[in-house]
Amino acid sequence: MDRPSTLHDKPVSVGIAGVSGYVGVELLRLLLDHPRVQITDLSGGRSAGKPLTDSWPGVAGLTDLLVESTDAARMADRCDLVFLALPHGLSAEIAADLVARGVKVIDLGADFRLRDPADWLAAYGKPHAFPALNAQAVYGLPELLGAGAPAALAAAPVIACAGCYPTATTLAALPLVEAGLVDWISASCVSGISGAGRAPSDKNLYCEVQESAEPYKLAGAHRHTPEMEQSLGVPVTFSPHIVPMRRGMLSTVTARLKRPVDPAEMKTLYDNRYAGHPLVQLRDVPPATRDVRGTGRAHVHVAVDVNRQAVTAVCAIDNLGKGAASQAVQCMNLALGFPETAGIPRFPLVP
Amino acid sequence: MDRPSTLHDKPVSVGIAGVSGYVGVELLRLLLDHPRVQITDLSGGRSAGKPLTDSWPGVAGLTDLLVESTDAARMADRCDLVFLALPHGLSAEIAADLVARGVKVIDLGADFRLRDPADWLAAYGKPHAFPALNAQAVYGLPELLGAGAPAALAAAPVIACAGCYPTATTLAALPLVEAGLVDWISASCVSGISGAGRAPSDKNLYCEVQESAEPYKLAGAHRHTPEMEQSLGVPVTFSPHIVPMRRGMLSTVTARLKRPVDPAEMKTLYDNRYAGHPLVQLRDVPPATRDVRGTGRAHVHVAVDVNRQAVTAVCAIDNLGKGAASQAVQCMNLALGFPETAGIPRFPLVP
Amino acid sequence: MDRPSTLHDKPVSVGIAGVSGYVGVELLRLLLDHPRVQITDLSGGRSAGKPLTDSWPGVAGLTDLLVESTDAARMADRCDLVFLALPHGLSAEIAADLVARGVKVIDLGADFRLRDPADWLAAYGKPHAFPALNAQAVYGLPELLGAGAPAALAAAPVIACAGCYPTATTLAALPLVEAGLVDWISASCVSGISGAGRAPSDKNLYCEVQESAEPYKLAGAHRHTPEMEQSLGVPVTFSPHIVPMRRGMLSTVTARLKRPVDPAEMKTLYDNRYAGHPLVQLRDVPPATRDVRGTGRAHVHVAVDVNRQAVTAVCAIDNLGKGAASQAVQCMNLALGFPETAGIPRFPLVP
Amino acid sequence: MDRPSTLHDKPVSVGIAGVSGYVGVELLRLLLDHPRVQITDLSGGRSAGKPLTDSWPGVAGLTDLLVESTDAARMADRCDLVFLALPHGLSAEIAADLVARGVKVIDLGADFRLRDPADWLAAYGKPHAFPALNAQAVYGLPELLGAGAPAALAAAPVIACAGCYPTATTLAALPLVEAGLVDWISASCVSGISGAGRAPSDKNLYCEVQESAEPYKLAGAHRHTPEMEQSLGVPVTFSPHIVPMRRGMLSTVTARLKRPVDPAEMKTLYDNRYAGHPLVQLRDVPPATRDVRGTGRAHVHVAVDVNRQAVTAVCAIDNLGKGAASQAVQCMNLALGFPETAGIPRFPLVP
Repeated sequence: MDRPSTLHDKPVSVGIAGVSGYVGVELLRLLLDHPRVQITDLSGGRSAGKPLTDSWPGVAGLTDLLVESTDAARMADRCDLVFLALPHGLSAEIAADLVARGVKVIDLGADFRLRDPADWLAAYGKPHAFPALNAQAVYGLPELLGAGAPAALAAAPVIACAGCYPTATTLAALPLVEAGLVDWISASCVSGISGAGRAPSDKNLYCEVQESAEPYKLAGAHRHTPEMEQSLGVPVTFSPHIVPMRRGMLSTVTARLKRPVDPAEMKTLYDNRYAGHPLVQLRDVPPATRDVRGTGRAHVHVAVDVNRQAVTAVCAIDNLGKGAASQAVQCMNLALGFPETAGIPRFPLVP
Repeated sequence: MDRPSTLHDKPVSVGIAGVSGYVGVELLRLLLDHPRVQITDLSGGRSAGKPLTDSWPGVAGLTDLLVESTDAARMADRCDLVFLALPHGLSAEIAADLVARGVKVIDLGADFRLRDPADWLAAYGKPHAFPALNAQAVYGLPELLGAGAPAALAAAPVIACAGCYPTATTLAALPLVEAGLVDWISASCVSGISGAGRAPSDKNLYCEVQESAEPYKLAGAHRHTPEMEQSLGVPVTFSPHIVPMRRGMLSTVTARLKRPVDPAEMKTLYDNRYAGHPLVQLRDVPPATRDVRGTGRAHVHVAVDVNRQAVTAVCAIDNLGKGAASQAVQCMNLALGFPETAGIPRFPLVP
Repeated sequence: MDRPSTLHDKPVSVGIAGVSGYVGVELLRLLLDHPRVQITDLSGGRSAGKPLTDSWPGVAGLTDLLVESTDAARMADRCDLVFLALPHGLSAEIAADLVARGVKVIDLGADFRLRDPADWLAAYGKPHAFPALNAQAVYGLPELLGAGAPAALAAAPVIACAGCYPTATTLAALPLVEAGLVDWISASCVSGISGAGRAPSDKNLYCEVQESAEPYKLAGAHRHTPEMEQSLGVPVTFSPHIVPMRRGMLSTVTARLKRPVDPAEMKTLYDNRYAGHPLVQLRDVPPATRDVRGTGRAHVHVAVDVNRQAVTAVCAIDNLGKGAASQAVQCMNLALGFPETAGIPRFPLVP
Repeated sequence: MDRPSTLHDKPVSVGIAGVSGYVGVELLRLLLDHPRVQITDLSGGRSAGKPLTDSWPGVAGLTDLLVESTDAARMADRCDLVFLALPHGLSAEIAADLVARGVKVIDLGADFRLRDPADWLAAYGKPHAFPALNAQAVYGLPELLGAGAPAALAAAPVIACAGCYPTATTLAALPLVEAGLVDWISASCVSGISGAGRAPSDKNLYCEVQESAEPYKLAGAHRHTPEMEQSLGVPVTFSPHIVPMRRGMLSTVTARLKRPVDPAEMKTLYDNRYAGHPLVQLRDVPPATRDVRGTGRAHVHVAVDVNRQAVTAVCAIDNLGKGAASQAVQCMNLALGFPETAGIPRFPLVP
């Protein structure tokens, strides 16, 4: 692109692996405007060796960059840090190779998210291929890490960004579990279809997705479940649904309260928990996903049903933003000492 | 319309009040093809006095009917039975007038749905205006009524058709509560926007609804909650959401089980409960709303999470079909001794 | 399905080849309710050997039919008539085989649409593989055939149903060219994506199609162009566009008039041309595709721009209805002496 | 908002009137990130006196600004320049008042677009209320103004930004008419519904717009027609259509060529015409509106049909971007001597 990627003297050199996918292009959009980085490498799978305009015709005239193959040696030559936005299961090996070459890795896939080897084995039916590296990885959900986030993220060779469903669900439920108010939660989530990726299948066709809502992988069948339980520490009944949107995700958490809680007390609990977190916005009314479209913000709302001693907490994110690309940028910002929100959009694209 | 409405000797004469709304036109579509009725009266509010083509240009050339005002005397002259598809709160008075004139009423609004006067008072903040008639009304959800449905519906002067959210939620959860397996449920529902009606507002604009999911009236705030609890007998934490669809509704019910239940036992429970109900279809995988688009069927799926002693049950309906118009026709069929599925579409409009 | 396919003594036995595609399932929906036929064979490609519910989960409980392979011998055993709803280029050979076995064929593909061997050669770059059969085929657009339609369609071994774009464009422009008022037309068309079929590709993904309009194959590049010119007899500049819909097609025809024409004269011209055609509805205002959703009707509107001596004519159809499945049924009806509109929906699915 | 609106010493103070509408909020999104301006006034109609978050809940936590009433004196106190994004017909009076107070006005409405008083009279049925000011206004389509744009826009008290349909159509057809290749064009356009504004009506409801395409105001009936003809100098048959999108506009221009033109010659003609215009991107294949979503760019494609001596030219824009808000910013940039593309997004929001 013809505009400078940075206004600063020594920008960090970053690469994006998987730039032809939906998460990859969102990373590209954010990093092009990031004040502290320059993009020095773009790579892809099916799109390797072709102009970026083949993948994204809308960038015609903005760039003459090529998409290259995902080669660790070349990336290590060019990059201080690489974002991996690869299909499931493809991150671990390339991450290990990059780390061995001294490159910091921010992985947007699931390969390094489960901290306990037993959880990994249970979820994937085989041991982790890089257990030592997995043990060093840090789970990239800054609001969960809290005050220790910058140090932890700076030290980690691999940052394993939280998944979209776990991000939304964790942000909705975290104050409840930390306060010991619930011992089980139901997380009913709706997601846009971009989370299913860009590889054509029967599942992501316009004629199938449009004007239909569909639950899938219910009652513990979805692999994001252990990731949620790792963060929250209580059992989670997770019910994901696809609804007709490209972007957007909502987690609606419901639970019975172990003791009566006054609505004002609950509000204070949430206010206190998220004070100082610039990308979590508390709302007095339930948020819609349009409120965060194209942004890196999470909008959170909590309501107490006094009559039924129950609670409902909602978190709205853009699954490609706080659920993926902007969360990765936020992790990078904290790890590298940049302002936490640098390069992260906050104003939604409306309508 | 130029085709005959019936092939039978003595069709029942029916009227539709509210034909310019989304529920009204779905009633019209179904009743035009119903083998045992003839439509003898169409009425509306804003559309009164205008040709039906003003409301529904697609019927050009099919009819030269006028939409008339909602006048009980004229309707009683012309109709044996009247369907009321009116905005909230407008049914009670006209229903009472029609009943007094000997007309059977099938009400698709909420005015006669709550059986307990105390529930009515709590929900609406004032006593019911027609308590005697409300006491005689029968709640129109045939699968809940069970074997006694035909007799009960035949005897009732007013049939108060179940609402869309309560229908989907009740059908998902009924076997659970009848078997005493749960003592609280979470019902997270998504709905198409047609349920919000056709009156223009900030809430049903294309630019606001499209590509956004939005929860509303959480934690007991929605008036459908007491209707669900009346049918199910346990507390319900109800979380409604609008998603970008015109038609379609999904209720995803989650709960902790009071005792461990084997998946096979659960399947048998559901199979037995819905045996003999031709419009409830059990599914081995979660249903999508596209599977029931334009039909009067409910697709139900149940899954047990053995590890967490929890259950997830899903029901998909068309909110204008089993959630409104076709449920009303089903109630009429049972009340008048017609085959239960007469005139009710079962094959979905796909894609 | 458990309902009888016909109420008549000797129904015609029909087969559907390609039932797992979007046109195929629309044929199934229509033929199941057709009063004069029974469906005796369903076949598919990728779906062969699997239950129909694998392709269309919404039919669960309605049928236990299997989808079989596309085998002419078996189809000829079971069927008097076969509808071919196959991917481009796959119809000709199976049609020839079926005809040789005495089965009447209604082809919804393009293989037999071009009457002039030279046009075929130009469009497809090779001669027709079955020139003798192609010479006997009749182009299935009843309103173009006019009064001779029943005889012509009855006599033809193969009926080559008109394509969706040519149907909409021909119905919009036919009165103009028959009256000699124009010597060139511009046909700008928008289509839902179901016309692109159900095979997953980069072109029919939700995330690509949604919220985007896209022209393609402009300036003579689309193979439907010679089909339009064959029917209209004047050069056509055809501009197809994909817009975010599953169903629906609009052809907007514009042209300069060779002589001034009064609006009233133009209206009379259209009225007279389509008198007696029950599935063409003239409209005083421009029709929307929602007006014909799920139906077999074409809504046509014409407007004269007196100041610019120009005309604009619009035709709205459902591309899977009058543009495919219901046109095929209409052709069958005329060929077999049934009422022209038997089994063809006319009331749109709204909203 | 808590980020600085500018990094420069003396930013220009600007106001936005109509910030609660779709064009207004897009202006807000762009101007917040513009490096040379600061927003000093926001006003609205129905939303006056309320927090901006009432209109746009997504800005919660980003601002505590109030929306004020549209008062010229206050705006003149606070602003060097005001953008007017008001409903049709409301701009003229407030613009005159602001100009009288020394404020430069960029009007995004139609009030000052027609240069010839006779055209105004014909289009609106009455003379212009401020003919002297209208005579001084400059039509804000920089690519049409060409090299003289900066001077003309700098001198004008009121810049009347080109409408969305005229922008797309003019950019598609301008090289053709300037080269004298055509003497009439057909402009068939599709638009997202945001162009219809945010006031609720029967026309912009989700259930009416979704899954439907609809032409309107055909054959010279649309008021944008004289605006197109003013810019192009040939008669235009304009056919606008609404398709199911929030944003996005496509103008597909077709015409017969007065003489044969070679495709290479045509390509050169377009290349030369748009050389040096940074927001017009020529494309070798037809552009989709997703390619420009959220940007201020126009993607233009031209194709010659040699066999029919006809041409098809397409222009894709975001109707709220190059069709409204970013065009206004581009005009401001040129008028005030800023870089032409300052603050204008060029990377599309995909998916």
